[in-house]
Amino acid sequence: QVVSTCERYAVRRLPFARLGDGDVAFFERLMPGRVVTGEEEVKPFNVDWLKSVRGCSQLVLKPQTTAEVSQVLRYCHERNLAVNPQGGNTGLVGGSVPVFDEIILSTALMNEIISFDKVSGILVCQAGCVLERLNEYLEEQGFIMPLDLGAKGSCHIGGNVATNAGGLRLLRYGSLRGTVLGLEVVLADGSALDCLTSLRKDNTGYDLKQLFIGSEGTLGVITAVSILCPQKPKAVNLAFLGCQSFAKVLETFTTCRAMLGEILSAYEFMDEKCMELVERHLKLSSPVTGSPFYVLIETSGSNSTHDEEKLNNFLEQAMASGLVTDGTVATDEKKIKASHLRERITEALTHEGYVYKYDISLPVGKLYDLVTDMRARLGQSAKNVVGYGHLGDGNLHLNITAESYSHSLLDAIEPFVYEWTARCSGSISAEHGLGFKKKQFIQYSKPREAVVLMQQFKAMLDPKGILNPYKTLPSAP
Amino acid sequence: QVVSTCERYAVRRLPFARLGDGDVAFFERLMPGRVVTGEEEVKPFNVDWLKSVRGCSQLVLKPQTTAEVSQVLRYCHERNLAVNPQGGNTGLVGGSVPVFDEIILSTALMNEIISFDKVSGILVCQAGCVLERLNEYLEEQGFIMPLDLGAKGSCHIGGNVATNAGGLRLLRYGSLRGTVLGLEVVLADGSALDCLTSLRKDNTGYDLKQLFIGSEGTLGVITAVSILCPQKPKAVNLAFLGCQSFAKVLETFTTCRAMLGEILSAYEFMDEKCMELVERHLKLSSPVTGSPFYVLIETSGSNSTHDEEKLNNFLEQAMASGLVTDGTVATDEKKIKASHLRERITEALTHEGYVYKYDISLPVGKLYDLVTDMRARLGQSAKNVVGYGHLGDGNLHLNITAESYSHSLLDAIEPFVYEWTARCSGSISAEHGLGFKKKQFIQYSKPREAVVLMQQFKAMLDPKGILNPYKTLPSAP
Repeated sequence: QVVSTCERYAVRRLPFARLGDGDVAFFERLMPGRVVTGEEEVKPFNVDWLKSVRGCSQLVLKPQTTAEVSQVLRYCHERNLAVNPQGGNTGLVGGSVPVFDEIILSTALMNEIISFDKVSGILVCQAGCVLERLNEYLEEQGFIMPLDLGAKGSCHIGGNVATNAGGLRLLRYGSLRGTVLGLEVVLADGSALDCLTSLRKDNTGYDLKQLFIGSEGTLGVITAVSILCPQKPKAVNLAFLGCQSFAKVLETFTTCRAMLGEILSAYEFMDEKCMELVERHLKLSSPVTGSPFYVLIETSGSNSTHDEEKLNNFLEQAMASGLVTDGTVATDEKKIKASHLRERITEALTHEGYVYKYDISLPVGKLYDLVTDMRARLGQSAKNVVGYGHLGDGNLHLNITAESYSHSLLDAIEPFVYEWTARCSGSISAEHGLGFKKKQFIQYSKPREAVVLMQQFKAMLDPKGILNPYKTLPSAP
Repeated sequence: QVVSTCERYAVRRLPFARLGDGDVAFFERLMPGRVVTGEEEVKPFNVDWLKSVRGCSQLVLKPQTTAEVSQVLRYCHERNLAVNPQGGNTGLVGGSVPVFDEIILSTALMNEIISFDKVSGILVCQAGCVLERLNEYLEEQGFIMPLDLGAKGSCHIGGNVATNAGGLRLLRYGSLRGTVLGLEVVLADGSALDCLTSLRKDNTGYDLKQLFIGSEGTLGVITAVSILCPQKPKAVNLAFLGCQSFAKVLETFTTCRAMLGEILSAYEFMDEKCMELVERHLKLSSPVTGSPFYVLIETSGSNSTHDEEKLNNFLEQAMASGLVTDGTVATDEKKIKASHLRERITEALTHEGYVYKYDISLPVGKLYDLVTDMRARLGQSAKNVVGYGHLGDGNLHLNITAESYSHSLLDAIEPFVYEWTARCSGSISAEHGLGFKKKQFIQYSKPREAVVLMQQFKAMLDPKGILNPYKTLPSAP
C-alpha cells in the first residue's frame, strides 16, 4: 500500500467544494458510462507509475470531445471543484495524480487522429492519443513523431505536451516548443481556446500555446495537438560503446558530433551501475561489458551507405585514439536489445525498492561530478547511486535507491542536490517537470521575479485555482 | 518626404505625457553623450527601412547596459511616457518606428558578446548585436547562427527575437522558439526579468521567455539573448533550377526532401517577375533563364563527397523526369550570386515605387494560387504582382508594386488578401509580425478569445500601455 501523499508530505487541503451525489449524477447525465467511481476502480488513477504518491479521488471522468471537457470544467468552476487532468499517468514527479480528492479528468478516450498531411508532415490529433500508436500510424506514411521516450506505450501526446516532454530524439528534432504548431485548450472556466493551427510559421500576436506547453495541467486542459513530424529516416544505426572514464565519454561526444554531423540523432550515456541493475532485474544482457561507462549512439539518415560510412569512420577513429575500448554496431536484432537497455533503466530501478529521482540539466562537462559527489556523500546509507541520461542535451538522470522511503536519507540528498545544481546554474528539472514533488524547489532554478510572474499568470487564467492544485508552483505568498 | 503615419492612417494619439526639458535633462544625466535630439539626427530612427511609415519622436536613447534600460523604463513608467524599442530598424510592418512622439530606445550600443561555449554551442550576447557580426564571430569557432535573413547586415538579434524572425535557415534549424534558450527582459515598470539560462532543457515552471519572443516590444524590452547555435557545416552546396509550372516546383520539393533528407537546408522559390526586377534594378544576372519559376536549393552537411553525391542523384532524377528544365549547381563564385538573387528581391522591389507587402502562411499546395488570383483581380491597376518565398515552410511573400501609394489600390487588395488567406486557414503574417500595419487584421488568423487573452497579458505586463503603443494588438474594446 502506497502511503497517501497528504500524509507523507503533511500538505493541507485547500478549501475546494467536496464532491456530492448531485455532482456525480450531473456527470453521469453528461457522459453516461464514462464516469468511474468506486475505490478499486479509481485506484489506478490515484497512484502514480512509480507508486510514490497517492491521492484519494473518488471520481474519474472520461470525456470524448472538447465540448465535454468544456462542460466538465464549466461545472467544476462554478461548483469550485478541483480537477486533476491526467494523460497516461506516466509522470515521475507526482504531477499526474491527485493529492486529495480532486476529480480526475482522463484523456484516455480522446484518442482520435484528426488529420495528417503528407506534404507538410503535420499531424493533428486529440490529446489522448498514445505516443507509440501515433508513431506507428506515421511510420506507415513514411514519417515519425519528433519525440520518443521510454513511456511511449502508455503516455498520451496531450500529457507529453503539457509536461514539455524531452526524451531520446530531442538532440535531433528539437523540443516540443518548436515542433508543436498548435493547441486546443480548455481553460479553467470551461471556455475553449482554439490555437490549433497547422502552419509552420505564424507571427500574428503572442504565441499563447507556449504557456500551456510545460504548464502541467495547471493553466488549462490540452484537448488537441498539431505537431510537425519529421520524415522517417531510411537508415537507422546504433552503436553501443564502452569508455574507461567520463572524460572519454565527453571527448567521444565531441568527436562524434563533428564526424556524424547531421545524422546524429541520440547520444545517451549510462554508468556501469545502471547496466548491472538492468541485467539483474530485467535479465537483459549487454552487448559490451567491463567498462565503467557506456554510450549509445543513434544515427538516422536518408542514405544507408553514406550513414554507415560516416559511422564506421567515426568508430575507427574513436577506437584508434583510445576514446572507446570496446564497441558494437547494432545489427537489427541487437539494435532492439541495445536500445531497450537504455530505455528500461527507469523500470529496472523500480525493482530496487524506493527510488529518489533527480532530473538535472548541467553544463555537459560537469554532468557526472554530481553523481560522484552524491555517492561519496551518501556512502552506505544508499543502496545505489546511479547516473545516466541524454548527454547530448546536458541532461543527467541521477537516481538513488534504498529498500524503502526514509526521511533521513531524503534529508541527506536534499537540498544538497539542488544547491549543487544551482551553483552550476543548472536546472533542477530538465524534462520531468515540477509536479508535486519538486514545486517547492523552483527557486533553485528561477529568480523570485519569475516565480511571481508565473503566479500572476496562474491567477489570471485560473482565478479559483481549480486546475491541478498543489502542483508546479509554490503557493502564492 | 515620407507621409507621417498618423496622417496617412488617421490614428489618434493616446494620452501619454509629453516630453519636457526636464525629461531630456534626466536622460542626459543618466547616459551622457548617448541621448540623441534634433530633428535631423532623430529622423533615421523615425522612418522605417521601406520608407512607408514615419513617426515624430524627438528623442533617441542609446543605453549600454540592462541597468540603464531599467532606469529608463522606470522613469518613463512613472512619467507615463511612451517608449518605442528599436533594434536595427529593418522591420517590414511598421513595428520598429514610433507612430507619434514615443521615445526611441535603441539597442545600437548594446552589442557585446557575453559568452560562447564551444562544447554546447550556446551563445549569450546583448540584444543589440548585429546578426551578421554574430555569425562571423561564430564561424571563426566552427559554428553558425541558427537564423539567416536578408537584413542580416543591420538587424539586431534582440529585434530578431522580439519579432520571432524566420528567414532562410528555418527549414533546417527550426524557429527561434526552439533555439532561443534564455532571455533577459526589462518589463514596462523597469524591473528586470532574468531568464537568461544557458541550458538546452529546463522544465521548471512556465516558459516565460516565450511570451516575449514575437511580442514586438509590446510586453518588455529584450536586453540579452541565449541561443543554441548549430555547427558550421563542412560543405554547403547551392542549386539554382528552372521549373515550367508551380506544380513542378511542388513536385520538385517532395522529391528533393526525400532524396536530400537531413542535408536540405533551404528550399526557396521565386517567379520570373522577381527575377526580372532583380536583373533590372540591381543589374544582377540569373544563372538560369527562360523559366516561369525558379528554385534555390541549399544543402549543408558534414561530408562534401556524400552531399555532392546526394545532390547529383537528385538533380539527375529531377532532370530525367522533366521536373526541372534547366539548372546549375553553384561553384564558389556563382554561389554568391545565386543566393544574392534571392536575398535581394526585397531591395529590388523598393526601386519600383510603393510596395504593398504581404507575408502569408498557406498550405504549400495553395501557395501560388493567391498570386495568380491577385494578379487577375488587380489587372492594370498594379505595376507588378510578384510571389516568392520559403516554400519549404509554406511561406509566401506576395508583393504588389505601384508608382506611389494609393488608397484605391489598397482597397482592391485588402481585405481580399486576408479573406483569401483566412479561407485556407492560413496566417496573414508568417514571419514579419503585425507591427503597426497589420494589427487590425489579426482576427483573420486568430479567434476573438485568443485576442482577448493577448490583451489581458498586455494589460497585466504593461498596465499603462507605454511599450510600443499602437502596435501588434488592436486596442482593447
